[in-house]
Amino acid sequence: MKEYKICIFGFGAVGKGVVEAILLKKELIKEKYDSDIRIVAVADSSSSAVSNDGLDEKLLIETKENNGNLSNYPKFGSNLKGIDVLNNIDYDILIEATPTNIETGEPAMSLTLKAFEDGKDVITSNKGHLSIDFKKLINSAKDNNVDFKFEATVGGAMPIINFAEETLNSCEIDSIIGILNGTTNYILSRMTSEGSSYINILNESQELGIAETDPTQDVEGIDAACKTVILANSILGIDATYSDVEVTGISDITSEAISLAKKDGYLIKLIGEVSHDGLKVSPRLVKQGSPYDLNGTLNMATLKTDLAGDVTVVGKGAGSLETASAMITDLINIIKNK
Amino acid sequence: MKEYKICIFGFGAVGKGVVEAILLKKELIKEKYDSDIRIVAVADSSSSAVSNDGLDEKLLIETKENNGNLSNYPKFGSNLKGIDVLNNIDYDILIEATPTNIETGEPAMSLTLKAFEDGKDVITSNKGHLSIDFKKLINSAKDNNVDFKFEATVGGAMPIINFAEETLNSCEIDSIIGILNGTTNYILSRMTSEGSSYINILNESQELGIAETDPTQDVEGIDAACKTVILANSILGIDATYSDVEVTGISDITSEAISLAKKDGYLIKLIGEVSHDGLKVSPRLVKQGSPYDLNGTLNMATLKTDLAGDVTVVGKGAGSLETASAMITDLINIIKNK
Repeated sequence: MKEYKICIFGFGAVGKGVVEAILLKKELIKEKYDSDIRIVAVADSSSSAVSNDGLDEKLLIETKENNGNLSNYPKFGSNLKGIDVLNNIDYDILIEATPTNIETGEPAMSLTLKAFEDGKDVITSNKGHLSIDFKKLINSAKDNNVDFKFEATVGGAMPIINFAEETLNSCEIDSIIGILNGTTNYILSRMTSEGSSYINILNESQELGIAETDPTQDVEGIDAACKTVILANSILGIDATYSDVEVTGISDITSEAISLAKKDGYLIKLIGEVSHDGLKVSPRLVKQGSPYDLNGTLNMATLKTDLAGDVTVVGKGAGSLETASAMITDLINIIKNK
Repeated sequence: MKEYKICIFGFGAVGKGVVEAILLKKELIKEKYDSDIRIVAVADSSSSAVSNDGLDEKLLIETKENNGNLSNYPKFGSNLKGIDVLNNIDYDILIEATPTNIETGEPAMSLTLKAFEDGKDVITSNKGHLSIDFKKLINSAKDNNVDFKFEATVGGAMPIINFAEETLNSCEIDSIIGILNGTTNYILSRMTSEGSSYINILNESQELGIAETDPTQDVEGIDAACKTVILANSILGIDATYSDVEVTGISDITSEAISLAKKDGYLIKLIGEVSHDGLKVSPRLVKQGSPYDLNGTLNMATLKTDLAGDVTVVGKGAGSLETASAMITDLINIIKNK
């Protein structure tokens, strides 16, 4: 049986989801892929738990929930963090789930490049470093002959990158159009069904925890724009960065505009589009009853192909275990190809 | 470079689509998979063209279009048909695209079993034999150590079988619910938008060539039921045949029922459902703005998973080149694993 030692960075919703998913799936991975998955390090922003003999998944989650950080993990908890953790552990695969920083790409950028240089595979859910310099990351992975997987970065549990690569391998993909942000889709859906104003629904969404206290990243289209950059590079082979995206958010959409569209059989959605003509995020009219007619926090993306026509995937754009599922798929794909 | 000799059975819309798709993609397959695809035989119900040196894709299509059959294909046309063709040709992969026969499963059943016994891989778009005796076919493929692929049988260009197997490899799939027939979805969509009766829209659909002259297979849910059988066996590992499906069609749906549903935010769709509780095809209420809210001839299927939640695929359920694209994906997957 092969053994894979896993190091997890970031222990918020996604990181915790990954630990839970490993707990749920490690027996299946053992049986189906003859591979033993062992978590040897978990690090949050201020602490870590590190043991070459492996950490206990349940105890990791309990320690974080009870103490807020990992320094109290029995015997193996410490204040070690960042690159120091990577330097103090023998591991095979880095699962990188730190928060997205669109300004600097850190700490994901440094951690990922360090892992590549050390010959380790990386799975990430982080959009920041990929949006800033996709090419640098991909080239470093290639130069160091390691795997780099990032299915979770676009649409959480909506599996678009592996889908385009594997399932549509007979097709050329010309463009991708989709609803790439769940929060704005939720706000627009409720504005449509209730006829309420943007600001009212935003406030309610914040109370429900669907929109963040500072909703800028979502409502101004920044999050969706990051995703178009990742799709452009990974699926269409377009060398683009965040600054190439033309972005308009939803904060100027009025309930009058929505009800006018509705009368004519249309809806207003925040649409991300990626083609060889450019990258764009903007509110657009879509037809009722089309694949874009989708309520709530769901994400969707239509791939326009030469042979199969339009093919669409729909899935949960966020969620702890849901996003983790995409990272476990990446993990299995790495293992399968070893 | 490896060489794959292809034998195609059935030269209607799908068979012709396969020949066109091979013409479009053979250079790409050469480059990307170091494999040379050569069509050595094409057979329709009464004639064939057979040459070990390979047939010309354009000439095959022209001959069929000009003569109605293949007996006039220059030099290599003949009246040879059925099993006789398979006995007279050296081939590697059978692409089986004969019409679905839900009563007997023929000629697909005999051709497929014969190919397996001769050690050949088979790709099919035929639902008949699979719905009647999936197990017999799969077991024969296993016993003879050959590949058997049938992505095109469910939803044409909606790639659900490979999607479940490859892209969702981290998830357990508990059930599958979807719109598995394009004709009935078209009829119900138009009844909803126009408030017209079933019989009026059916007649118009027949004039447009969307519904067949004898629409029974579609409107009585038989086609969708075949698809639930294939999904049950292939994705959920349920040993089911056509007789296990509880089937109700759409011919009794009134425009009054549709408009009543619409008022409450619902739509009526013909839904196929596969779970360990059973297989069912029936008209059901679905929510507006849900992934089931889809107009026209599109097909969709939601896979209910343990980790990723609900994941949905949407695609064209029919079409010559679209259905062929699923068969070319199967072909590439066979080649990749050799």
